Amino acid sequence: MTIELAVPETRPVPWTRRHLLGLEDLSRPELETILDTAEDFAEVSQRRRKKRAGLKGKVVVNLFFEPSTRTRTSFGLAAKRLSADTIDFTTSSSSLMKGESFIDTAKNIEAMGIDVMVVRHSSPGAPHLLAQHVGCSVVNAGDGAHEHPTQGLLDMFTIRRCKGRLENLTVGLVGDISHSRVARSNIHGLLKLGARVIVCGPPTLVPPSIAQLGVEISHRLEDILARCDVINLLRIQFERQRHGLFPSINEYARLFGMDSQRLRRAKENVLLLAPGPINRGVEITPEVADGPHSAILQQVTNGLAVRMAVLYLLCGQPPAEG
Amino acid sequence: MTIELAVPETRPVPWTRRHLLGLEDLSRPELETILDTAEDFAEVSQRRRKKRAGLKGKVVVNLFFEPSTRTRTSFGLAAKRLSADTIDFTTSSSSLMKGESFIDTAKNIEAMGIDVMVVRHSSPGAPHLLAQHVGCSVVNAGDGAHEHPTQGLLDMFTIRRCKGRLENLTVGLVGDISHSRVARSNIHGLLKLGARVIVCGPPTLVPPSIAQLGVEISHRLEDILARCDVINLLRIQFERQRHGLFPSINEYARLFGMDSQRLRRAKENVLLLAPGPINRGVEITPEVADGPHSAILQQVTNGLAVRMAVLYLLCGQPPAEG
Amino acid sequence: MTIELAVPETRPVPWTRRHLLGLEDLSRPELETILDTAEDFAEVSQRRRKKRAGLKGKVVVNLFFEPSTRTRTSFGLAAKRLSADTIDFTTSSSSLMKGESFIDTAKNIEAMGIDVMVVRHSSPGAPHLLAQHVGCSVVNAGDGAHEHPTQGLLDMFTIRRCKGRLENLTVGLVGDISHSRVARSNIHGLLKLGARVIVCGPPTLVPPSIAQLGVEISHRLEDILARCDVINLLRIQFERQRHGLFPSINEYARLFGMDSQRLRRAKENVLLLAPGPINRGVEITPEVADGPHSAILQQVTNGLAVRMAVLYLLCGQPPAEG
Repeated sequence: MTIELAVPETRPVPWTRRHLLGLEDLSRPELETILDTAEDFAEVSQRRRKKRAGLKGKVVVNLFFEPSTRTRTSFGLAAKRLSADTIDFTTSSSSLMKGESFIDTAKNIEAMGIDVMVVRHSSPGAPHLLAQHVGCSVVNAGDGAHEHPTQGLLDMFTIRRCKGRLENLTVGLVGDISHSRVARSNIHGLLKLGARVIVCGPPTLVPPSIAQLGVEISHRLEDILARCDVINLLRIQFERQRHGLFPSINEYARLFGMDSQRLRRAKENVLLLAPGPINRGVEITPEVADGPHSAILQQVTNGLAVRMAVLYLLCGQPPAEG
Repeated sequence: MTIELAVPETRPVPWTRRHLLGLEDLSRPELETILDTAEDFAEVSQRRRKKRAGLKGKVVVNLFFEPSTRTRTSFGLAAKRLSADTIDFTTSSSSLMKGESFIDTAKNIEAMGIDVMVVRHSSPGAPHLLAQHVGCSVVNAGDGAHEHPTQGLLDMFTIRRCKGRLENLTVGLVGDISHSRVARSNIHGLLKLGARVIVCGPPTLVPPSIAQLGVEISHRLEDILARCDVINLLRIQFERQRHGLFPSINEYARLFGMDSQRLRRAKENVLLLAPGPINRGVEITPEVADGPHSAILQQVTNGLAVRMAVLYLLCGQPPAEG
Repeated sequence: MTIELAVPETRPVPWTRRHLLGLEDLSRPELETILDTAEDFAEVSQRRRKKRAGLKGKVVVNLFFEPSTRTRTSFGLAAKRLSADTIDFTTSSSSLMKGESFIDTAKNIEAMGIDVMVVRHSSPGAPHLLAQHVGCSVVNAGDGAHEHPTQGLLDMFTIRRCKGRLENLTVGLVGDISHSRVARSNIHGLLKLGARVIVCGPPTLVPPSIAQLGVEISHRLEDILARCDVINLLRIQFERQRHGLFPSINEYARLFGMDSQRLRRAKENVLLLAPGPINRGVEITPEVADGPHSAILQQVTNGLAVRMAVLYLLCGQPPAEG
């Protein structure tokens, strides 16, 4: 009888990467390894004794150059549940104000004996640059409008848990596609695992070039409702409005918000996702957000399992040696 | 020989509540159970090995929508001493700035697998509202001017330790009764355990209706000095002065401050309490605050034991299974 | 076969101090005890299992009244690696804003059962004052322009590791000597361990009285280059410039900055130190900072070992009892 089950029984491939920078880089078997490992950790989180020893003695630092609550907290909890020590390093309390560069800051932190850096930065590619300069593992927790791989993974994990598979599903990504790192990670991951992706939003917020990734483009939510098995309602960032890219909030909600009426025209068992925090009444009405089709809170719960899996694969030790 | 003693030998009643929202709700046996459990933890804190395993694998979040140092730190330490993982979530770093509601924020945090939420909020009843929406335990760490149950409990615990009992003692609560959640929790708890309570302060800060709770009202500290076994000097919040409810600081200190001269007219073994941080020279003069009658620092120490007891009763596991 | 090696095999003297307030107070054997103990912990940090039990159940609080990233993080990690519980207490979140005094704040925190207070404060002597009022251990993490003992220790530790000894080495401290607590701790420690110290900087920033400590004074970096085995390039605080004490940044860099050209005139195996965060291109050019003579990142790594040693000596328990 094994209590300390922390490694999946079978894995499609042995894990060899040191960093998780984006889903664009990963192969299908690698994506499946993460999702399968997350499955094990999701099961562990249901037990009375939720603490694992896989990262005991390891140090995970949250290196956030943009504010964040839920991603930072989720990574922190994932690390603690694996018995790692954790450090929070956010810009406001940082030496960056004293004129130190991003890479200098990171190398100095690394020199304290860090094993994993979870990085959020407003510049696309910042985690990749970092990975070239440090010896520890780097996890991208969002780099500008580029990628947010663990959000993509938790969306995929939630779909797989709710629908039993990803293969041959049709997933609609609705909203500001241009500026969404969540959209980009979802697209890369979903296509690799055999799903179809339709991106849908106002023409100012959907770059035509995105079709090159292999997705379909739509500008009317009505047109795609009947075809989607999953609809992922991306978060509206009100600050975009200032730049003239955005219709009014009311008009956005009217054209792209999910409400009971639209839900009736969707597939009967459509799954609704939304990376929080949601703007109730904008991307989704409260009754739909809290209704039976919504997996919004499961996404948060699954985020913990996915992040435990990522941390464990990047630098965990199997239980026997743990 | 048991090292891991973390449960009291005998308890008045088995504990059944999931939340601690206020002392108004608790029965006398329930109050006694908390105080008795705190007694065990106070004893544990004196040992060389202070760490207990009762909350191992559990997650306690400090969800504070008002600034706080000592209450937040005390709960955090209590949780850590019981081997829980802890998260600090304060407004400044929160998603609330992105327009998310209080309940949405809490439900999202809960979805990460939280076992206890310790909540401070400026709105009376906020923890009660929260308790209706989440599946985890909720501890009220102060809701507006309503209740601050663990402060009430640590005041009672300190009195019981110093005086040997609460029954038939006379306790004076001095200061701004109208706006004090500490006063309200003390009143509910003390009356239930058989103490007499006199509230004392300027007429603008003592609502006549408070007599309905079963307390005596006084507006002159001199009048009650000789009768009090315990005097609890509530903290003056200077910001009230702006609203015209408050005499000048000097006048307050002259009329209601505890100094050596007044102390001489009090009972010989009077016990002085004050929920910190104290304003030296206002509610209490430095020589009295640091003198032999004052239990101000013991209150802080006892706060840890009381909060360990509360967390343990709400979601702890007995050592054998821990 | 011992895995839990956390105490040095032999120690010059048994450790008896409760506080670490400054290197001025320490004897040569005491300094050597710290460095030898740090040597053990540096070795432990190279192992796969880096976690030690020496401070299990102990509580270490970072009580910082000045902003800091690296020192605070380094102490926090050192404490965690020794299995202590840690609390961060910085001014911004503190009760000091409510008018509480420094000592009151500290005594209240201590009453929660703190074992070690790591204190940074802008007033010279603040940690010494604190040590007179609390029962726990106090570590000075920087008090105004007075001392920063663990920085001095980590500089000395880095020199000893790189050069094999401190005795009879010549160490140049370059920069703003007047306002540098790092300089002061280095001077006290280095002289006691038998090194020679030359301080070097513009006349406005090198007080002539410092010669009384037993150091040589120079105002031209060129004059001392050929004699120094180690050059410690102190951090320039740009805010000093406003007070007219400081040449322009460009002029400072031209006169006192370390670049490839100056490096060629230094000893062939000169060791370059710099307490971060460095201003690249001011105290040191990027190519020299990242070059083979620089031990800047080793200093950070060694800081962890030194702080583990200090915390362990002040309040740790040997493994058998841990």
